[in-house]
Amino acid sequence: MGKVRVSAFSVSLDGFAAGPGQDLQHPFGVGADAVPAWLRQTKMFHDMIGQPGGTTGIDDDVARSSMENIGAWIMGRNMFGPIRGPWPDESWKGWWGPNPPYHVPVFVLTHHARPPIEMEGGTVFHFVTDGIESALARAKQVAGARDIRIGGGASVIRQYLQARLIDEVRLAVAPVFVGAGENLFSGLNLPDLGYACVESTAGANATHVRAVRQSS
Amino acid sequence: MGKVRVSAFSVSLDGFAAGPGQDLQHPFGVGADAVPAWLRQTKMFHDMIGQPGGTTGIDDDVARSSMENIGAWIMGRNMFGPIRGPWPDESWKGWWGPNPPYHVPVFVLTHHARPPIEMEGGTVFHFVTDGIESALARAKQVAGARDIRIGGGASVIRQYLQARLIDEVRLAVAPVFVGAGENLFSGLNLPDLGYACVESTAGANATHVRAVRQSS
Repeated sequence: MGKVRVSAFSVSLDGFAAGPGQDLQHPFGVGADAVPAWLRQTKMFHDMIGQPGGTTGIDDDVARSSMENIGAWIMGRNMFGPIRGPWPDESWKGWWGPNPPYHVPVFVLTHHARPPIEMEGGTVFHFVTDGIESALARAKQVAGARDIRIGGGASVIRQYLQARLIDEVRLAVAPVFVGAGENLFSGLNLPDLGYACVESTAGANATHVRAVRQSS
Repeated sequence: MGKVRVSAFSVSLDGFAAGPGQDLQHPFGVGADAVPAWLRQTKMFHDMIGQPGGTTGIDDDVARSSMENIGAWIMGRNMFGPIRGPWPDESWKGWWGPNPPYHVPVFVLTHHARPPIEMEGGTVFHFVTDGIESALARAKQVAGARDIRIGGGASVIRQYLQARLIDEVRLAVAPVFVGAGENLFSGLNLPDLGYACVESTAGANATHVRAVRQSS
């Protein structure tokens, strides 16, 4: 069985994954565009959106490996889109256009049921209304030997960490301060939950750290 | 006039400068010894405590420059010692033995008055009971053209940042999680206060970042 993992999840020096005021124009909130900037600059990201160029090296290696060997994704509905509350209609199909970069089933945690959406390229968005353990169980059914990636946002990752359901967390710490918004570490005691940082590698535009759950 | 600066101040990936339960046996609290470990490993620190060896390179360069050109220090009384509340007597003279590594006046913020203590090597501890601005004014009087270093802990640095009294902040981010204790970023919105990260350099055992107050 594969790992349950967080990969290439970007946080600021002060722990924020997103700023306040997330909406259609500000997917990462106001003042937090620089948090995932390291990723947007990689060749992997350029390739993904069909653009030439991009940086190679450690940041690019991290970006690439973050997308490898994944059998299913889990994400919060705020990562899926800017709509809050009940779905007004079925027109919103994610930020990523007709062919999203996932190419496997994606389980979207939400309080508001919605039929699955089959996209081009193998991505299917499933909407899960009965909690994080149910989403993980469904992801395991489809992922087989491959890993399950908990995509985000901060709140979803925190919930899975607090339930000790994540095997490995790879964060990309961007050299910026955000000051307000969605803080990954808010109320999160990683050592108490059994997680320790075991590796830190400096890329050109972010520091990449890896934490694992110690076997108890 | 010199700068008011924070230098080589160590924080964990989740923002903690110290763990819970600081006392005589645990100057940095429980579970947080690894936060300043990068500093203890440097040749500069080994030299300072009269030990052979220690690492050279970026971490050592940062440690060395953190002690240069300083005309006065300001620190909280929790950085001065483990005693809380009124001074029971005048026996506690800091963690650092008869010849502390400061060699200039050190202004200790406290609610409890106490006569100055003159140590060997030029360090004089002055106890300031009328607030951070008073301590800074007194530090400026003695520092002349040299810098004033705000030593810590987290609470003192946060107070000076919130008052926009610091020109430059250099943090050393250690690749560890602490989970509880004294969090530098708690309630601190650095961008709102005008501070931006302008530099990030990877040492062997910590990532060194520099933030400055933007001129407004």
